[in-house]
Amino acid sequence: MHTTPEQVENQIVAAHAAYEQARDVEPQVRGSWLEAIAAALEANADELVGLGEQETHLDQGRLRFELKRSVFQLRLFRSEILAGEHLGAIIDHADQDWGMGPRPDLRRVNVPLGVVGVFGASNFPFAFSVMGGDTASALAAGCAVVHKIHEGHLQLALRTAALVEKALASAGAPQGLFSAVVGRQAAEALVDHPLTKAIGFTGSTAGGRALFDRACRRPTPIPFYGELGSINPVFVTEQAWDVRRDAILSGYAASFTAGMGQFCTKPGLLFAPVEDTDEVAALLQQELESKSLAPLLSPKLREGFDAALDKVRSAEGVDVLVKGDDAEAPRPTVLATTAEAVLAQPELLEQEMFGPATLLIRYRPGTDLTELAGLLEGQLTATVQGEPEEKLDDLLTVLRERSGRLVWNAWPTGVSVTYAQQHGGPYPATTAASTTSVGTAAIGRFMRPVAYDSFAPEQLPPALRDNNPWNITRRVDGIHQPAGQKAEAR
Amino acid sequence: MHTTPEQVENQIVAAHAAYEQARDVEPQVRGSWLEAIAAALEANADELVGLGEQETHLDQGRLRFELKRSVFQLRLFRSEILAGEHLGAIIDHADQDWGMGPRPDLRRVNVPLGVVGVFGASNFPFAFSVMGGDTASALAAGCAVVHKIHEGHLQLALRTAALVEKALASAGAPQGLFSAVVGRQAAEALVDHPLTKAIGFTGSTAGGRALFDRACRRPTPIPFYGELGSINPVFVTEQAWDVRRDAILSGYAASFTAGMGQFCTKPGLLFAPVEDTDEVAALLQQELESKSLAPLLSPKLREGFDAALDKVRSAEGVDVLVKGDDAEAPRPTVLATTAEAVLAQPELLEQEMFGPATLLIRYRPGTDLTELAGLLEGQLTATVQGEPEEKLDDLLTVLRERSGRLVWNAWPTGVSVTYAQQHGGPYPATTAASTTSVGTAAIGRFMRPVAYDSFAPEQLPPALRDNNPWNITRRVDGIHQPAGQKAEAR
Repeated sequence: MHTTPEQVENQIVAAHAAYEQARDVEPQVRGSWLEAIAAALEANADELVGLGEQETHLDQGRLRFELKRSVFQLRLFRSEILAGEHLGAIIDHADQDWGMGPRPDLRRVNVPLGVVGVFGASNFPFAFSVMGGDTASALAAGCAVVHKIHEGHLQLALRTAALVEKALASAGAPQGLFSAVVGRQAAEALVDHPLTKAIGFTGSTAGGRALFDRACRRPTPIPFYGELGSINPVFVTEQAWDVRRDAILSGYAASFTAGMGQFCTKPGLLFAPVEDTDEVAALLQQELESKSLAPLLSPKLREGFDAALDKVRSAEGVDVLVKGDDAEAPRPTVLATTAEAVLAQPELLEQEMFGPATLLIRYRPGTDLTELAGLLEGQLTATVQGEPEEKLDDLLTVLRERSGRLVWNAWPTGVSVTYAQQHGGPYPATTAASTTSVGTAAIGRFMRPVAYDSFAPEQLPPALRDNNPWNITRRVDGIHQPAGQKAEAR
Repeated sequence: MHTTPEQVENQIVAAHAAYEQARDVEPQVRGSWLEAIAAALEANADELVGLGEQETHLDQGRLRFELKRSVFQLRLFRSEILAGEHLGAIIDHADQDWGMGPRPDLRRVNVPLGVVGVFGASNFPFAFSVMGGDTASALAAGCAVVHKIHEGHLQLALRTAALVEKALASAGAPQGLFSAVVGRQAAEALVDHPLTKAIGFTGSTAGGRALFDRACRRPTPIPFYGELGSINPVFVTEQAWDVRRDAILSGYAASFTAGMGQFCTKPGLLFAPVEDTDEVAALLQQELESKSLAPLLSPKLREGFDAALDKVRSAEGVDVLVKGDDAEAPRPTVLATTAEAVLAQPELLEQEMFGPATLLIRYRPGTDLTELAGLLEGQLTATVQGEPEEKLDDLLTVLRERSGRLVWNAWPTGVSVTYAQQHGGPYPATTAASTTSVGTAAIGRFMRPVAYDSFAPEQLPPALRDNNPWNITRRVDGIHQPAGQKAEAR
């Protein structure tokens, strides 16, 4: 079952050879490869969703949406590369009058890195797995991908990988541009291999940090784009609580139980000015009763969830507000504590409970929310439930320093794939806070810029020629030009 | 002389406090700080250049140009931040018809990282030192800087730091936004401090790698932008050699001896189809005779140069083509070997000789230059001397994979500060090949994106408001807009 060291070696070498054939194809061709994969996923949706249901306990509706999202992502990335957005092409014509002295003709374009190792996550069997965001962005960038399968959905992953390989082959992509491996030994070999040029990872903080350290220790270190742990705090202002407490509790209950609480953006902390604890408990209880239940993704994950829940539940000053249970499909748990307790034990805010549980932190009227926010570690998201006219600059700034996405009067679960999306954040949320693993900017992680200095026009790559044969968007002599424009020297 | 641990701690804490005050000022204000520094450097140019002459053995003309470049850089960065280029602002209005399902209103902007530690280099007392590219880009990004002074030009560095602090103060910048430290202990404390959010470094591969490892090992790892070693190969095609051999040798002699060979972009390897070795030796000898000589930057650097030169000179198959000397101001040395010898000992291509020495690699007609290029490690630059009509795609691609800047029929020394410039490259040239330490793109190293999800207009930061109060350039609903345009929802 596990990929042998020889197989891993062969796959990485084949991926590198495929990368060498594929790195300079024109955007139309690379775009057709992405489209071929998208079409194959769509055509086989029933089978894939069925496999997902068997292996993950996630329901069909959710899995269908996730597949749709993955397909959409491939097509959005296709349109980005047709416009050349990922290339970041810049042309500075030679300028005798340049302020520091004559400048030569300088042109810059992003090139792909090479073979990328992508680690699948357990909790998104499509969106962060075989053909998820990391694979899609690496292929869009012009890289080859060797995917480390998450064994939580092994059959689905193997089937998806086979479909991707077949789709790429029929679209004319070089063999080996995508392949998959299984097993821990294969994973480590992938991180260590000299031909591997970057890693995309989504998973636990402990596992991610170990692989990050491994990537840094290499003779030639490589970038490790790891999405690790996040607890996703929500701050409710007193005004918002007064105006719409019930709606907030209802939204919160829905968000932290979505996917049985197994989202990296699950809101795990709610700071609210609760006075009547019983009433809030009753409201949450009622909201939670209607949620459908399912077993967690895997026994290992369940074990981790139980341990984390026990740890928080047994901490000093923590009470059970809504008692869940420990059935195979566990009912959600809401724990509660106070602002004073977390000020005394900030580590209460650092324990992710990956599953259907969350911690409510009651604060007294007049409490300085920025002080509480200042206790937080790096997060993928931070949410504020407030009123538009409130003066919340300080709180928003403290949260901005600690997160990659600020959410206003909405909920952090559900991450749209768009141009502006940022799915990342300071450590330990990720190991590379200046990058995103969702949205079109994700493509740039797998590229690096190269400047062409004083080049003869005949020797320039297409993206940098004055006549713009690829019709891409560029910056010319400091001015941004829409797609398709020629670059005329002044 | 050396900064004490208490002083370092105080300076970092003060820098963080200054960052907190400065992070959200409008571009006009931050731009005025950069301008104040530029004006102060200009106003004190004579004194600074004089100090530089005393401490570095670099000549006045060179130092004046380097200072002019640093001043220009500050003003170029000012114009970049006025246009908001560094903010990468993107606005995606809510869209019910978005392909993967309704998308919320999502807006993205880059925010500064916090306190940045910048390590000065010995060889550019202005351009890569106290007020060099790393400091300028970190300040432009909105960060605070604690600068680790290079003791090779201590008095110049202390004086420059004092001028920068004074200029910032008179321009109204918060105290502590910039300060300088001295000594190895201070350097390590700077890399380790929890409030330090990134490091900019220019220096040796050994020293840089040790600090990179240190930055990665932190409980919260931080990005380490290190520019380390580069040997900057030059490939001369047979056609170019036939057409203009003498001009190539002349340009080469000038480039590898510029600044006494103490440039990170010094061409250290020349691959050329030499047949008559004596004639080439005579031509180089003649070119080199006219070069002015100076002692190297420091005794320590001289020691390293002598050791590296000895190592290459004594390797098997290496001859002395032009014999330098070991005077205090050493005459340049040209060593020579053959393609066969480097194929047998590729490590010959990995020994940087930081000073006035270089290695010529003779190849026979018909030799596969891509095979030789394939032996190279990561480089800042790679140069081809060829003829425009030659078919050189394979060679250029192999060199592109190994470098950050490709130079065509010109020389790698001299790095203009422009929009398209890329001064970086695969390890060991740098520890972060996807970034640059020269050019306007350098600013982005010290920022990270944050998304604003579903925000009330009243709560958005200025850069992301529909009415565009900062008049910056943005991408709105996928379309790039020039500076100053409003973002109207469709």
